[in-house]
Amino acid sequence: MPQSQLIDGHPLLTGAVADSPLLAAYRGDVPSRRPVWFMRQAGRSLPEYRETRAGTDMLDACLTPELAAEITLQPVRRYGVDAAIFFSDIVVPLKLAGLEVSIQPGIGPVFARPIRTMADVEALPELDEDFIRALTPVAQAVALTTAQLGGTPLIGFAGAPFTLAAYMVEGKASRDHLGARRLMAEAPDVWAGLAAWVAEVSGWFLRTQVLAGASAVQLFDSWAGSLSTADYEKFCQAASARVFELVSDLPVPRVHFAANGAHLLAPMAATGATVMGVDYRLPLDEAVLEVGHLPLQGNINPAYLTAPWETLREHVDDVLMRGAHASGHVVNLGHGVPPDTDPDVLQRIVDHVHDAPVA
Amino acid sequence: MPQSQLIDGHPLLTGAVADSPLLAAYRGDVPSRRPVWFMRQAGRSLPEYRETRAGTDMLDACLTPELAAEITLQPVRRYGVDAAIFFSDIVVPLKLAGLEVSIQPGIGPVFARPIRTMADVEALPELDEDFIRALTPVAQAVALTTAQLGGTPLIGFAGAPFTLAAYMVEGKASRDHLGARRLMAEAPDVWAGLAAWVAEVSGWFLRTQVLAGASAVQLFDSWAGSLSTADYEKFCQAASARVFELVSDLPVPRVHFAANGAHLLAPMAATGATVMGVDYRLPLDEAVLEVGHLPLQGNINPAYLTAPWETLREHVDDVLMRGAHASGHVVNLGHGVPPDTDPDVLQRIVDHVHDAPVA
Repeated sequence: MPQSQLIDGHPLLTGAVADSPLLAAYRGDVPSRRPVWFMRQAGRSLPEYRETRAGTDMLDACLTPELAAEITLQPVRRYGVDAAIFFSDIVVPLKLAGLEVSIQPGIGPVFARPIRTMADVEALPELDEDFIRALTPVAQAVALTTAQLGGTPLIGFAGAPFTLAAYMVEGKASRDHLGARRLMAEAPDVWAGLAAWVAEVSGWFLRTQVLAGASAVQLFDSWAGSLSTADYEKFCQAASARVFELVSDLPVPRVHFAANGAHLLAPMAATGATVMGVDYRLPLDEAVLEVGHLPLQGNINPAYLTAPWETLREHVDDVLMRGAHASGHVVNLGHGVPPDTDPDVLQRIVDHVHDAPVA
Repeated sequence: MPQSQLIDGHPLLTGAVADSPLLAAYRGDVPSRRPVWFMRQAGRSLPEYRETRAGTDMLDACLTPELAAEITLQPVRRYGVDAAIFFSDIVVPLKLAGLEVSIQPGIGPVFARPIRTMADVEALPELDEDFIRALTPVAQAVALTTAQLGGTPLIGFAGAPFTLAAYMVEGKASRDHLGARRLMAEAPDVWAGLAAWVAEVSGWFLRTQVLAGASAVQLFDSWAGSLSTADYEKFCQAASARVFELVSDLPVPRVHFAANGAHLLAPMAATGATVMGVDYRLPLDEAVLEVGHLPLQGNINPAYLTAPWETLREHVDDVLMRGAHASGHVVNLGHGVPPDTDPDVLQRIVDHVHDAPVA
C-alpha cells in the first residue's frame, strides 16, 4: 500500500502553498486576501477547454495525464483563481476499478450492468493492488499539474458514495434517484455492501491525488439532496466518513459539498469534513448557525451570472458580508458554473473578490 | 365577477364535511381519526385510471367534467381516504386563459411561445369575464365530483406562480429552472409582470373550485425548491400571497406545499397559508420548529412504498409520532405517488393510519 505521509517536495510542504489564501482560509487562519475559485471552473464554459477536448472522449481526457493537467490549469491561468480543482469525473475511479462505464454526451455516465442484488454487489471487482496500480494515470496527471501550479494549491476531487451508488443502481442519471433510495429501504444489506465498496473506491481516488500533490480534497455528494435527513444518517453518512478516513492521516483540509443539501449540513459535517461547501439556496450566515465551527465555502447564486454587473456585484457583496460571519470563508459559486457562462463575468468576480477586504 | 360567499348547499356548509377528520385537522381541532390522503392519489398508479384515460389526451381529460370527476373519485372509492384532490393539471387555467400549451407524454407541458421579454408579458391574454367563463368546465367537474363525494371533502388544486412561470419562461420543464431564476435577476420588472399575471390565473382557478364545491385548497409550488430563500422572498412570495388572497374571503383552509422546500417553510407559510405541507426530507418535528403555529401535512417517504411492510409500517409510525408534535396533522406522502406504486400498499397505509390513535 502507498506510504501514509507526504513525500519531500509535496506542494503542501512548501511555504507558498501552505501559506496560500486558500489553505489559510480552510484552516480558519486569516488569509492575505479572500480566496475564490469556482466549481466546474475547468470545462465547458471555457473556449480553450472546448478546443483542447475537441474529438476526445470525456473519460479518455480524464485518463490522459497531459490533457487532464492542461484542462485543470486553464482556469488558473485565465482567472488567477486561488485554487485549481483536479479535472476528472466522479466515475473515473469506478472505471479504473473495472466497471464498464462510459460518459455519453447529453446523458452522462451509463453503466453496462446496474447493481441491484447482493449477487451484483458480490460480483463487484476486488479492490486490490491492481486497482491502486490502475490509478497511476491519476497520480501522473496530478503530478504534472502541481509541477506547473507554483504557489496555487490543487484540490483533489471525488464523488461521495451515495451519488456514485445512485448512478450504479439506476445504471444512469435519474431525476429523483428513487431506485437507490428504494434499495436502502428494501434491502439495506445490499445497499450497505454497495456503499462500502464505493467508499473504498472514492477514498483511494482521493488518497492517490493527495499523495501525488493535491493539497486539499473536496468530496461532492451531488445527489444527496434527494435524501431525507434520516436516510442520509442511516444509510450514507458512514460511507462518506470512510472516504474521508482514507485521507485522514494526511494533513489536508477535507471539504464536503452537496447541491440542495441545506437540510444535511450538520450530518455531512459529522463525516469528518473540516470545511463545508454551501449551496446557493441557504445564506452563509444561516449556515453558520448549523456548522459554524467549520470554515465555509460558497455560495454565489449561478443564476446571477447573467444579470447586469451592478446586480451581480451587490449579490457578491452580500455573499462576502454573510461569509464574514464564518470561521473562514472561501468564495465560490453555490453550484457548478453553467456551461453558457461568459468567462469575463467570472473574471470580474475574481477581481472584485480580490479587491475586497479580507473579513 | 362571481359571488364572494359560499352558496347554499356548498359541502362546507354541511356538518359531514365541516366536521370531517380532514377539516378538523386543517383547523387544528381534534379529528375523529387521523386523516390521510395522498398527493397524486388519482392517476397513473391506478388501473381504473389507466382504463378511464385510455385514448384521451391529458388536457382533454381535465376539461371533460365527467372524466375529471370520475378520476377524482376513483381513489376515494378505492382507498377510503379522507379527502379527494381535484384531478387537473397546473397548466389547465393557463390554457383556459388562452395560452397555447399541450401536455406531451414523457415530456410534460410544452408552451408554443416562451415568455422572456416585457413585450411577451404585455401580450399575455387579458384576464376578463371571458377567462372566468372559460373556467366553467372546471366548476362543472367540481360540482359533479362533490355531488358524489358525500361527507368526504374535496381539495381544490393549483400551481403556484413560480412553478407555472418557470414552465412559461423555459417553454417546458427544465432541470434547474435556470431560465426563470436568471430572468428574476436580469429583468426583475419582466419577472414581476409575469408572476403577477400567473397569480391571477391560479387564484381564479382556485376560487372557481371553491365556489363550485371544494372545501379546502392546496397550492403546489413544485419547483420552488430550486430558489434561494432570498430570491423566493424577493421575487415569488408576493405572487403566491396574491393567489391565496383570491380565496381569503372564503372559509376554506389554505394548504401550501413545495417539494424540496425545507429552506422555504417559513416564507411560504407567510403567504397566507393556514396549513403547511412538508416534503419527505425534513422530519415533521423539525418542521414544527419552523412553522409550528400551523397544522402540518405529510410526509411519508415514497421510497419506502416498495419496502417490506414491517419497514414501511415502522416508517409510517415514525411519521405519526413526529406529526403528533404539530398543532394538527394530516397524513400524506412527502411527494407524489410514484406511477409504479402498488395500490394495495397505499390501502394498507390508509387502514393502518385509521387504526392509529388520533394524537
